[in-house]
Amino acid sequence: MSHRAHDTVRALEWRDGVLRLLDQRRLPREECYLELRDAAATAQAIRVMAVRGAPAIGIAAAYGVVLAARARHAASPTAWRAAVEADMALLAGARPTAVNLFWALERMRGVLERVEGDPGEALLAEARRIHEEDVEANLRMGELGAAYIDGEAVLTHCNTGSLATGGYGTALGVIRSAYAQGRIRHVYADETRPWLQGSRLTAWELVRDAIPVSLICEGAAASLMREGRVRWVIVGSDRIAANGDVANKIGTYSLAVHARHHGLGFMVVAPTSTVDLDCPDGAAIPIEQRDPGEVLALDGRPVAAEGAGAWNPAFDVTPAELVDVIVTERGVVERPTAEKMAALLA
Amino acid sequence: MSHRAHDTVRALEWRDGVLRLLDQRRLPREECYLELRDAAATAQAIRVMAVRGAPAIGIAAAYGVVLAARARHAASPTAWRAAVEADMALLAGARPTAVNLFWALERMRGVLERVEGDPGEALLAEARRIHEEDVEANLRMGELGAAYIDGEAVLTHCNTGSLATGGYGTALGVIRSAYAQGRIRHVYADETRPWLQGSRLTAWELVRDAIPVSLICEGAAASLMREGRVRWVIVGSDRIAANGDVANKIGTYSLAVHARHHGLGFMVVAPTSTVDLDCPDGAAIPIEQRDPGEVLALDGRPVAAEGAGAWNPAFDVTPAELVDVIVTERGVVERPTAEKMAALLA
Repeated sequence: MSHRAHDTVRALEWRDGVLRLLDQRRLPREECYLELRDAAATAQAIRVMAVRGAPAIGIAAAYGVVLAARARHAASPTAWRAAVEADMALLAGARPTAVNLFWALERMRGVLERVEGDPGEALLAEARRIHEEDVEANLRMGELGAAYIDGEAVLTHCNTGSLATGGYGTALGVIRSAYAQGRIRHVYADETRPWLQGSRLTAWELVRDAIPVSLICEGAAASLMREGRVRWVIVGSDRIAANGDVANKIGTYSLAVHARHHGLGFMVVAPTSTVDLDCPDGAAIPIEQRDPGEVLALDGRPVAAEGAGAWNPAFDVTPAELVDVIVTERGVVERPTAEKMAALLA
Repeated sequence: MSHRAHDTVRALEWRDGVLRLLDQRRLPREECYLELRDAAATAQAIRVMAVRGAPAIGIAAAYGVVLAARARHAASPTAWRAAVEADMALLAGARPTAVNLFWALERMRGVLERVEGDPGEALLAEARRIHEEDVEANLRMGELGAAYIDGEAVLTHCNTGSLATGGYGTALGVIRSAYAQGRIRHVYADETRPWLQGSRLTAWELVRDAIPVSLICEGAAASLMREGRVRWVIVGSDRIAANGDVANKIGTYSLAVHARHHGLGFMVVAPTSTVDLDCPDGAAIPIEQRDPGEVLALDGRPVAAEGAGAWNPAFDVTPAELVDVIVTERGVVERPTAEKMAALLA
């Protein structure tokens, strides 16, 4: 069940052979759509974070393979496969941490390996399936996760909504469902430095969908919890290791430590495409280090004195023992362990 | 012993009957001095954070009383006292949390009550003493605190340096001393949203004083600790309650929880003028709530969608049980309690 009044945003669209993406770098000031026509442009859009959010990156990459295969097959109906492989390598190299990117490319490769003749139609059908399944998974996770939630408000981090997924959202999907069911009345959102996904994206989505939202600086999250303003912290994930360790936007681990310290619930919401059984634990998850300039400048203007450095990891790892609930479209895992994760995916 | 090579900044100066303040709102882009000639301008400079940092606010207010008394006595050599009291009330109302403001005004009032005739000279002498004693206290705390520090680097929060004090700094004074003694080689500084004191002020001071500094977003602090990059978190304070609870810039409590979780040391550095025995514990300390616009805009431009709110407390309270060491100019208190704090101040 989608709660349409609180679910109006769709940021990824395939239309007339073109991938249209709402450019998330320019929100909330401008609602500007990029029209992507080849794999290189798609990889670039992922790299510069015009599209971000683990599931959305996977979906964009899947459509990128469609764009690649159409162009390469048109250019050479006999020798297109090697060129598409090169395009897929380009897409895979766009960002390192979110496993959904590699998962989506693997699904597309599965179709590629079976297809004969012009691959366009079969690949487009698969990309659309990935996209639709993601929205369905989010709606399902919304229901499963919301059942845990009560209290006046929750705290979330980064953006895990329609902008980060095929639609509805992971953590923000649970929040949409909980709000629609009257389980919460208010959302606190970390501004999420340095990229300000909370301020720029989550606030925009929630305002647009008529869900009351208050931003806080990351430094205020512990005080918010100490004052008893929230009972749950709800976040997404870019990769979940086989033992339940969770990689997510920098600042997530911080919230998990605080939630435990204050006796609050810490919920991770992610489709099973985010689980990477090839990573035994969080230490095996590659953490993207981004440009120090993201911290040293604001809106393109230097904010720190010349000569200062910055340490700018884009993600962190929350150990499984700090996670109370992982919500997936296949079900919920409480207090995750390797055994429980394996059982979920069996 | 001052370490001059690593201590070049002075932001407050009394010159030719005028209080000159380095305008901290405009750093690091511009080094611009305000020339304050009356109490109203001084109160306004405190309110808008042209000068900030608990000790610096106290010193500025003390000079503000000098400006007030000179003007009021010149205007009416018989009826100036009531007007000065009104000016002092204006100064006291500029900001609520840092107790140094009220402490400095009380010291000035002590002189006022004894003075006969033109109060200017006696008040200026007292303001200068408050200023000089603050620098001396900082140098002493630098020595006392540095003795605890080792490891490659430390993490600090907000700005507690020469800009926040009469000179040298509290937490940053300990860091200066530890660096000069070769005990650390590097400083990590939280950018300290929303006002970015870390990025704008601490980085500027440290770059200028040739101490290597890397900024981090607040959300990265827990990961920094988990990776073992620091052994100590060192912060200042705006008010310390009788039981050792510590009010300081929002985000401090967050770091204290993280330091304890990771088994690291948490040090508070503040002169005894920051201790408020009239506050039995942190719950009695008034916490300033500032304009949500500080979170909702960056550099004066809106960053969040219209309709989003913000929760913007300027300070938080760290309970004494999370504090390993309080360093004052009168000595060090380890694992503070009401008894130990009372003994320090006896």
